[in-house]
Amino acid sequence: MSTTDRELRVGMVGYAFMGAAHSQAWRTVNRVYDLPARARMALICGRDAAKVADAADRLGWEAYTTDWRELIARDDIDVVDVCTPGDSHAEIALAALAAGKHVLCEKPLANTVAEAREMAAAAATARAAGVRSMCGFNYRRVPAVTMMRQLVADGRLGVIRHVRATYLQDWIVDPQFPLVWRLQRDRAGSGALGDIGAHIIDLTQFVTGRRITGVSAVTETFVKERPLPAGSSGLAATVNGAGAADGHGAVDGHGPATGTVTVDDAAVFVARLDGGALATYEASRFATGRKNALRVEINGSLGTVVFDLERLNELEFYDATRPAAEQGFTRILVTEGEHPYMSAWWPPGHIIGYEHSFTHQMRDFIEAVATGADPAPSFADALQVQLVLDAVTRSADLGSSWTEVEPALATVAA
Amino acid sequence: MSTTDRELRVGMVGYAFMGAAHSQAWRTVNRVYDLPARARMALICGRDAAKVADAADRLGWEAYTTDWRELIARDDIDVVDVCTPGDSHAEIALAALAAGKHVLCEKPLANTVAEAREMAAAAATARAAGVRSMCGFNYRRVPAVTMMRQLVADGRLGVIRHVRATYLQDWIVDPQFPLVWRLQRDRAGSGALGDIGAHIIDLTQFVTGRRITGVSAVTETFVKERPLPAGSSGLAATVNGAGAADGHGAVDGHGPATGTVTVDDAAVFVARLDGGALATYEASRFATGRKNALRVEINGSLGTVVFDLERLNELEFYDATRPAAEQGFTRILVTEGEHPYMSAWWPPGHIIGYEHSFTHQMRDFIEAVATGADPAPSFADALQVQLVLDAVTRSADLGSSWTEVEPALATVAA
Amino acid sequence: MSTTDRELRVGMVGYAFMGAAHSQAWRTVNRVYDLPARARMALICGRDAAKVADAADRLGWEAYTTDWRELIARDDIDVVDVCTPGDSHAEIALAALAAGKHVLCEKPLANTVAEAREMAAAAATARAAGVRSMCGFNYRRVPAVTMMRQLVADGRLGVIRHVRATYLQDWIVDPQFPLVWRLQRDRAGSGALGDIGAHIIDLTQFVTGRRITGVSAVTETFVKERPLPAGSSGLAATVNGAGAADGHGAVDGHGPATGTVTVDDAAVFVARLDGGALATYEASRFATGRKNALRVEINGSLGTVVFDLERLNELEFYDATRPAAEQGFTRILVTEGEHPYMSAWWPPGHIIGYEHSFTHQMRDFIEAVATGADPAPSFADALQVQLVLDAVTRSADLGSSWTEVEPALATVAA
Amino acid sequence: MSTTDRELRVGMVGYAFMGAAHSQAWRTVNRVYDLPARARMALICGRDAAKVADAADRLGWEAYTTDWRELIARDDIDVVDVCTPGDSHAEIALAALAAGKHVLCEKPLANTVAEAREMAAAAATARAAGVRSMCGFNYRRVPAVTMMRQLVADGRLGVIRHVRATYLQDWIVDPQFPLVWRLQRDRAGSGALGDIGAHIIDLTQFVTGRRITGVSAVTETFVKERPLPAGSSGLAATVNGAGAADGHGAVDGHGPATGTVTVDDAAVFVARLDGGALATYEASRFATGRKNALRVEINGSLGTVVFDLERLNELEFYDATRPAAEQGFTRILVTEGEHPYMSAWWPPGHIIGYEHSFTHQMRDFIEAVATGADPAPSFADALQVQLVLDAVTRSADLGSSWTEVEPALATVAA
Repeated sequence: MSTTDRELRVGMVGYAFMGAAHSQAWRTVNRVYDLPARARMALICGRDAAKVADAADRLGWEAYTTDWRELIARDDIDVVDVCTPGDSHAEIALAALAAGKHVLCEKPLANTVAEAREMAAAAATARAAGVRSMCGFNYRRVPAVTMMRQLVADGRLGVIRHVRATYLQDWIVDPQFPLVWRLQRDRAGSGALGDIGAHIIDLTQFVTGRRITGVSAVTETFVKERPLPAGSSGLAATVNGAGAADGHGAVDGHGPATGTVTVDDAAVFVARLDGGALATYEASRFATGRKNALRVEINGSLGTVVFDLERLNELEFYDATRPAAEQGFTRILVTEGEHPYMSAWWPPGHIIGYEHSFTHQMRDFIEAVATGADPAPSFADALQVQLVLDAVTRSADLGSSWTEVEPALATVAA
Repeated sequence: MSTTDRELRVGMVGYAFMGAAHSQAWRTVNRVYDLPARARMALICGRDAAKVADAADRLGWEAYTTDWRELIARDDIDVVDVCTPGDSHAEIALAALAAGKHVLCEKPLANTVAEAREMAAAAATARAAGVRSMCGFNYRRVPAVTMMRQLVADGRLGVIRHVRATYLQDWIVDPQFPLVWRLQRDRAGSGALGDIGAHIIDLTQFVTGRRITGVSAVTETFVKERPLPAGSSGLAATVNGAGAADGHGAVDGHGPATGTVTVDDAAVFVARLDGGALATYEASRFATGRKNALRVEINGSLGTVVFDLERLNELEFYDATRPAAEQGFTRILVTEGEHPYMSAWWPPGHIIGYEHSFTHQMRDFIEAVATGADPAPSFADALQVQLVLDAVTRSADLGSSWTEVEPALATVAA
Repeated sequence: MSTTDRELRVGMVGYAFMGAAHSQAWRTVNRVYDLPARARMALICGRDAAKVADAADRLGWEAYTTDWRELIARDDIDVVDVCTPGDSHAEIALAALAAGKHVLCEKPLANTVAEAREMAAAAATARAAGVRSMCGFNYRRVPAVTMMRQLVADGRLGVIRHVRATYLQDWIVDPQFPLVWRLQRDRAGSGALGDIGAHIIDLTQFVTGRRITGVSAVTETFVKERPLPAGSSGLAATVNGAGAADGHGAVDGHGPATGTVTVDDAAVFVARLDGGALATYEASRFATGRKNALRVEINGSLGTVVFDLERLNELEFYDATRPAAEQGFTRILVTEGEHPYMSAWWPPGHIIGYEHSFTHQMRDFIEAVATGADPAPSFADALQVQLVLDAVTRSADLGSSWTEVEPALATVAA
Repeated sequence: MSTTDRELRVGMVGYAFMGAAHSQAWRTVNRVYDLPARARMALICGRDAAKVADAADRLGWEAYTTDWRELIARDDIDVVDVCTPGDSHAEIALAALAAGKHVLCEKPLANTVAEAREMAAAAATARAAGVRSMCGFNYRRVPAVTMMRQLVADGRLGVIRHVRATYLQDWIVDPQFPLVWRLQRDRAGSGALGDIGAHIIDLTQFVTGRRITGVSAVTETFVKERPLPAGSSGLAATVNGAGAADGHGAVDGHGPATGTVTVDDAAVFVARLDGGALATYEASRFATGRKNALRVEINGSLGTVVFDLERLNELEFYDATRPAAEQGFTRILVTEGEHPYMSAWWPPGHIIGYEHSFTHQMRDFIEAVATGADPAPSFADALQVQLVLDAVTRSADLGSSWTEVEPALATVAA
């Protein structure tokens, strides 16, 4: 533990799946890493007083409020952690930045490009005043992913030729699964595309250091009508789904009425990256048997890396510069002290889990805030992901026609 | 061994990679399977007398000729097996059919849709006279692939939602690899697309029983100039690459001059299948570390199957109708007597190899010819694959615009 | 979170690898599980005041002491958690039980059978007074392992025929690795055998519900002399190795002097289990490339299960009652709500890590203590493991002669 | 094809599982490899005239006989290939050697040490007259196994510390499986031990270059009474089981009577190798779900190799001299031209099967005979395996007491 007494007093908005994951990370990060500041779980915010009180007690927050504006207004909060559905990201984050709070905002940054542009602009402005902001693409901090980035950056893959990325789940294959908020465009922005497709867009661009420049996309909603969740008036669907054990906002029962699914069940697209690589992307919630199958393979002229989130402690690396008879995919167990983030954890071979990616994210965020550095990914980085999502949607809407990704720099120019 | 003395006297044109593979299969098939006719390796044809004489001796053919027209003209040949590059398929196969020979033609059926249409029409005509024809998509006869087809046909996967298929190789990653015939459009028709992409198009349509209806594609030639093969005038490139050990037509040395690669190095496309599934396809010769990585995953509403040609004795099957706590991908070792084609081979767990797919192909071809049945895939089936290849090419040429696959039935109408 | 205000005030002795793992678990358990009591991290104990003060701050303990007798004497401690090396387990645990504290003791229970017998007897006596005790074989609480136990208990494997268990590591392959306390018999009791062999003995007996009845063993010390750790007088070797990042007590530098390794580097043995199964066991610190490779396969007349700690979220299950053509090893991703311990964690496919086994252990311990039930494994169970270790050592000392495992019931008789 | 016209006229005794496998290899070997002599499948021998006639026709032998003595007596036979059950190996091989025939004898060399000693002595005598002999441990010729041997010989593994070898099958788990000849000591010599245990003994000694010096063993017969095969008088069980599709001598039906299993179902043992390594071995026919699971892992001070016969085209290699962060198990697809035996087969990634190990064996045998070199493994090598089998049996009979392997050199001294 550092000798510093500096505290970062965190106020978190939202307490469902992401709220639970962030809480576990805030609680753990200073117990594992020696950092220049210590996070204090000061305040949690949710709309339902009883539920947020319970969440505060269960997750270990000192106090709670039902008003996020109050949370932002308080002097004794340094960091605002936005864990709400995407439709409220912009409003909360903009207010927090305006109030001089450092902001960590869950992905996708926003539900629209316009919001994301506004947020990126606000972050740039706030930065001049020493205010830090970061978007929560936590998978960048899976040690194997960070290591992939290093291998590419070190030139070990040579010229990137191919990216193939899938993020596959299967939790709505059953047509009787109810119409939760994640299946509604007004709340979620999009379906598989924004929820999980955003992760593979960010991850592959991060690892390769290359940007997607154009796409040709197809999206589909396989099941167009679903039963309404039981008691699903107003916020009920969201609130019912707030348990940590259920990350997707499911509810046990549902009424007889049905509603229309307004988001994509699956999105597939081919893409080009700057630098000349071809890429394929697929995000789906209809891949039976695939639970959290974020898989990425990147082929370069000198080597290949392969990652699978369901085996996140492993990285496969093919080094084509090795002697011909000894080439092959090396399964690296990314649990050595030499690997990113791992020296603070357990001995080699003692694996870590999904939640550790958030602990690593908090580590880097705290360090950046405490030392006055810019954490990554910035809101501008997240805007660029949003622009790719937007190009995918536009291409799909236009019968898969080739669609260029709008430059993020337009924001700056504006 | 059957008591029948019926012989099928085979004449094979070509003796390089495919010629060697077919020879191994013709030599083996009646030793393993009890069939109503026995293949006799009667005649082999190639343009270079010395080389074809050597091939006849090495591969075990009774005689050789340098003139494929003579081969077709002979009365004592029942079957013509076409193993040449794609640019000569149509001419040879049409002549053989016209001469009343049963024809087995390597894939892709032809280099152009026009040729393929003509071949399919000729096959339909010949069929009326009892002449059989088949295209050599041998991977249909990998036992695990045949089993996938059966699972789908039995409804075990439910409604097909997703197909993801890749066929990845890496044998031309090195920019100094020479400009062999497979990299020349006039000989090969296309590059990765027709050579290996054709396999995954056929295989996925076979397994799902569904047709690709439209595509949006991107193709790329990463290395546009390559050294000419040493002594590569005329047929030299082909002839030099004729060794069984080198399936890709490589040569050891090469001269200082370079030439232009006129085919694709990689092709990626998204597609829709009739029945509503989304699909992604990728064929590449630039996937470093992937040697023969034909991988297919098919997600249905009730289950998923996964196949990898580099582990062709295995099939992964996810059965979503099993109890929740016991669901998972079952790695079926497809070596039991209950599995397709396997009762004739070794005890369980004793694996087979790549070449066995050809033995199985010959088994089914011989049986069909001997019993007067139609072998599959027919030339019409192969034409349909050609039409998909054509749609991919047209989409890529038109900036990835969505392109419908032309109906094969037009042939019949014509 | 439960409405109960009942607290269990924990005092932990030791703060190295196991101390860090236990701290993480005590800190987390009530944040994830709804339990009838809440653990309070009240007091931590270590011999070096500065270091234990730092550990208290870093790991989140309210207070510290350098005297474990004081810890036991305090009225405001309900639970004593023993995380020291094996040579002090007996003294601390016996004193704690005598003082009426519930005890959680790390494995192996003791360094000698005599100590273990005394501890088991004391635990039985204390139990009559409502005092609970448990030995920390945490791997029983890996969800996949718990599930294996359930499958066997449900008869899904039929009659157990074979057990094959290995626990392989490689952290002392380098002969320059120093002579840390784990390589000294007086501190550690034994080497690979007691440290990691104990885990596979307990785990396989737990899963099968069968006891090892006899063994024939070979042990080996491949590297007999090693450099002394730098500054390795007295406790230095232990203290230097206390960092959470280094679970094996390694130090960075070392002096020129060497000392004798007095424990086994590897132990292998064949065994019989009651019920008729044959078994092989292997524990080694010389298995190059194997980091934490606890692997167990159990074959029964109806099925097989396979577990690998480096992929602890997965369980392979072969069900021989399935249709012949569909049999195979099913890779179950043990992350569903239906799986043991998992409903409280993340959505399916979001994997957990090594440390979660401790959180699950604390969950069960707290629940047992709070409800007046007996947690498992008891000290008597741990004594039985000690008796197997003893039989292995005796067999190895007697030239691998067959050695019966002494019955634990002798304790009760005494 | 070589210009040589030299022929090796082969006479094979036996036509069941091994006979079919050898036939496939003799038929193929000169079609794939360019060798100094050409095998001619001249004569096949079996006791039942009708069945051997059918086998000759099916497997492609020019002639047949029912008398192995006649086969040996013929002048126009150069090579005798012994594929019978173990109880007749000695008699046939000794007669063949005495007649000046080169001999290839299936493993295990004999059913007793005495027979094996006599055969090794006869082979040594015959060798002086230019007669070659070899025992059919075909798995040495799996390319990945040959490559393992090379890696060890090149010092890539350093000092060998551990060998762990299993050969697991499950074809007699069902207690109703009949009492075929492989379950009768007088025919088969032993059960799992000699049938499959012999393979892992030879393979690990071959790969490591080290000999097993002593063992401590346990064997078990789990099912002691089994139904007799239908019509199992005299040779019927053998003859019925002669189909190529059934490698284990099973029959479809069986009568009501039962008989006693006189061989082991499973054998497990720990061992020491010269050079100091510890080893565990397990051979079983009761490992449910394991079909042909010959798996070997060898740990050395510098690296580890792992092999699995069910994925025989792959070799896992861990190189501990690589940079720490990049170490891992490299899955080498052993299908490159640089790999042993592979340059004659298909392009990279096109896998081979079980039967190819026999083709490679015939290749090396033909080359040795034609060039006057000694093929390996010699009868003396095979005797040494027999001595290990004998030590295992003696140890098991003596309650697992440590048993030294008798030196093979005693043969020479005698």
